[in-house]
Amino acid sequence: MPDRYPYQNEPIWSRSEKALARKAFDAALGRELHEVIQEAKKMASQIQQSSDLWDLKHYLTERRKEINRKYDYRYSQLTHIFGKLLYEKRLHEEELRGLREDKLKPIRSIAQFLAKYAA
Amino acid sequence: MPDRYPYQNEPIWSRSEKALARKAFDAALGRELHEVIQEAKKMASQIQQSSDLWDLKHYLTERRKEINRKYDYRYSQLTHIFGKLLYEKRLHEEELRGLREDKLKPIRSIAQFLAKYAA
Repeated sequence: MPDRYPYQNEPIWSRSEKALARKAFDAALGRELHEVIQEAKKMASQIQQSSDLWDLKHYLTERRKEINRKYDYRYSQLTHIFGKLLYEKRLHEEELRGLREDKLKPIRSIAQFLAKYAA
Repeated sequence: MPDRYPYQNEPIWSRSEKALARKAFDAALGRELHEVIQEAKKMASQIQQSSDLWDLKHYLTERRKEINRKYDYRYSQLTHIFGKLLYEKRLHEEELRGLREDKLKPIRSIAQFLAKYAA
């Protein structure tokens, strides 16, 4: 059964789609890390008392957890991740140009769902 | 049994000793927090990549744990804490002037033990 994929609902990623996905994923992660670095520098520069220090600790701990949870590079998770990143505007749709419709459709649909849910 | 203290080996802290202990304790804690704040500001200002960011997170997490463990304001712990702070030079012996010998003796003895142990 050469055309059978083990998980029926998961699209197959071609080699070029995988390369594109990796690039888009890394770009979004890089931008998010850059934001956290900028915020950490700002918070640190404004520390005046110990509560500010522990606020910074808390901020970094939470962002680390969130980023680890969010950037889970498995093909079974990628449509969901890209949908979320589109919704958050951390990823631009043109960065996904080159993916086939079987990926773009669920990605857009998750972004739209999140936008609706947040409104 | 008005003179009987529940824990035979623990000295009784007089009101003036308690006030002095609180002041010395807070001063040492304040100095230690000040150090951590300065170090966090320095580390944050030098962040260039995400590994530096998570190093800062790790540093803050560890220092928080260590400070919480160390600064445990219970009279049953104070001689040990002050001994350690003396050894670390975070506390000067003159800040403890006014404590009675039944406290100063174990405090000095702990400081000396730690100095010997570290050498």
